[in-house]
Amino acid sequence: MLTIAYDGTDYHGFARLKEDPDTIEGNIDRAIKKVTGETVEITGASRTDSGVHALCNAAVFDTESSVPAFNFTDALNTKLPPDIRIRRSTEVPGDFHPRHTDTLKTYRYEIDNERTADPLRSRYSMLVGYALDTDSMNRAGAELVGEHDFKSFCSVHTQAASTVRTVTGIEVIRDGTCSERIYIMVRGHGFLYNMVRIIAGTLIDVGRGRLAPEDVTDILYAADRTKNPCPTAEAKGLTLMDIEFLGLEDR
Amino acid sequence: MLTIAYDGTDYHGFARLKEDPDTIEGNIDRAIKKVTGETVEITGASRTDSGVHALCNAAVFDTESSVPAFNFTDALNTKLPPDIRIRRSTEVPGDFHPRHTDTLKTYRYEIDNERTADPLRSRYSMLVGYALDTDSMNRAGAELVGEHDFKSFCSVHTQAASTVRTVTGIEVIRDGTCSERIYIMVRGHGFLYNMVRIIAGTLIDVGRGRLAPEDVTDILYAADRTKNPCPTAEAKGLTLMDIEFLGLEDR
Repeated sequence: MLTIAYDGTDYHGFARLKEDPDTIEGNIDRAIKKVTGETVEITGASRTDSGVHALCNAAVFDTESSVPAFNFTDALNTKLPPDIRIRRSTEVPGDFHPRHTDTLKTYRYEIDNERTADPLRSRYSMLVGYALDTDSMNRAGAELVGEHDFKSFCSVHTQAASTVRTVTGIEVIRDGTCSERIYIMVRGHGFLYNMVRIIAGTLIDVGRGRLAPEDVTDILYAADRTKNPCPTAEAKGLTLMDIEFLGLEDR
Repeated sequence: MLTIAYDGTDYHGFARLKEDPDTIEGNIDRAIKKVTGETVEITGASRTDSGVHALCNAAVFDTESSVPAFNFTDALNTKLPPDIRIRRSTEVPGDFHPRHTDTLKTYRYEIDNERTADPLRSRYSMLVGYALDTDSMNRAGAELVGEHDFKSFCSVHTQAASTVRTVTGIEVIRDGTCSERIYIMVRGHGFLYNMVRIIAGTLIDVGRGRLAPEDVTDILYAADRTKNPCPTAEAKGLTLMDIEFLGLEDR
């Protein structure tokens, strides 16, 4: 199992695409081939969208190689571009599948709440130039915590059999240390296609006063993306911060 | 007066260079020409090295333009590359010179203290893979606070008439929230060529145990860069965080 960090700016998402070499999976598959000589397709835990970043995504693969699991970290890093880094490599049970295991995932959506973008954060945050009321955003976020049908917060292109998911926490934090920055932390057991970005887009609309926090409950119960007037927030502001595999021992 | 933020990764430093268009000053000079039609050379407060970043550098220029000072922010930003941003533009007295005014500058040197680089911070931090003792680093930093001849912490290529400077504070902070990161905050009334990067390189050597904190006093008193065995830390870890112009009203 690999723990993987990447700056998603220059990649077309995590998931392997035929005839497109610029995916995170594609790059790691090729690095493994260079190290072991084997043709493998890694199985990722989170198929993040194009432009989304990760500090701790995960993927597994089978190998006949005699290279100890621990040594794959440095071996793969020498073959990977600098904006994709393996942070840990460990052995896991052969039947472990990272998407068929209960997980707790933590995402952070970063908002640069200034008039002019901070060029040191512009790859990793969305610029929102108007004032945001984080108290309202927190109240709206609380409406979404729990097990719900999140169809109103899911791309219409989803192929998921069920759109019911459990969100365990949403917290909106303002950090004005250097400049005004707002983090939307979203944690839950799995997410639908674009779900965190639509939650972020909805909370931003609440923060600027276009919607009241209570309106978010109506949107949730409508269970229809077309009944949610809020945009999908930009990919670049989203970072997958952590995945906890429940039942799997500490990586 | 312009307040300027930039990601220095792709630039050859702040100061204008003949026949090199890729400096921060060169880009801003050209943007002003596009807005006002005038050929100007801005005067910067801090001539940061190639690869160094800034959140709040400053520069002044004279103009005959009738565009109000406030409007230069947006006007220039539309002409500048996205990794250089004007954050504020205000009128200052005509005789104000940002390098002939007493200032208090705050720099941050960021260390990614992990085995593998965090790709989301690798443009803005130096990877240090060995353990660092931040208590020792803080003790060493305290030895440098005050008015001293900093010739041991200055590039041999300096052209400064005097190498005496006043450092008002050095603080080493460990932040382990997401991953191990160490910040060296350095504040003072002006700095010599490479001075903050040499202070950072010296404190890192102390942190890893190559030098004792007291050795830093001997190095300081030697007043000779060749008597300081420590390296100049990488440019990319350094960010100019703030410049306070003492005696100038709030920008």
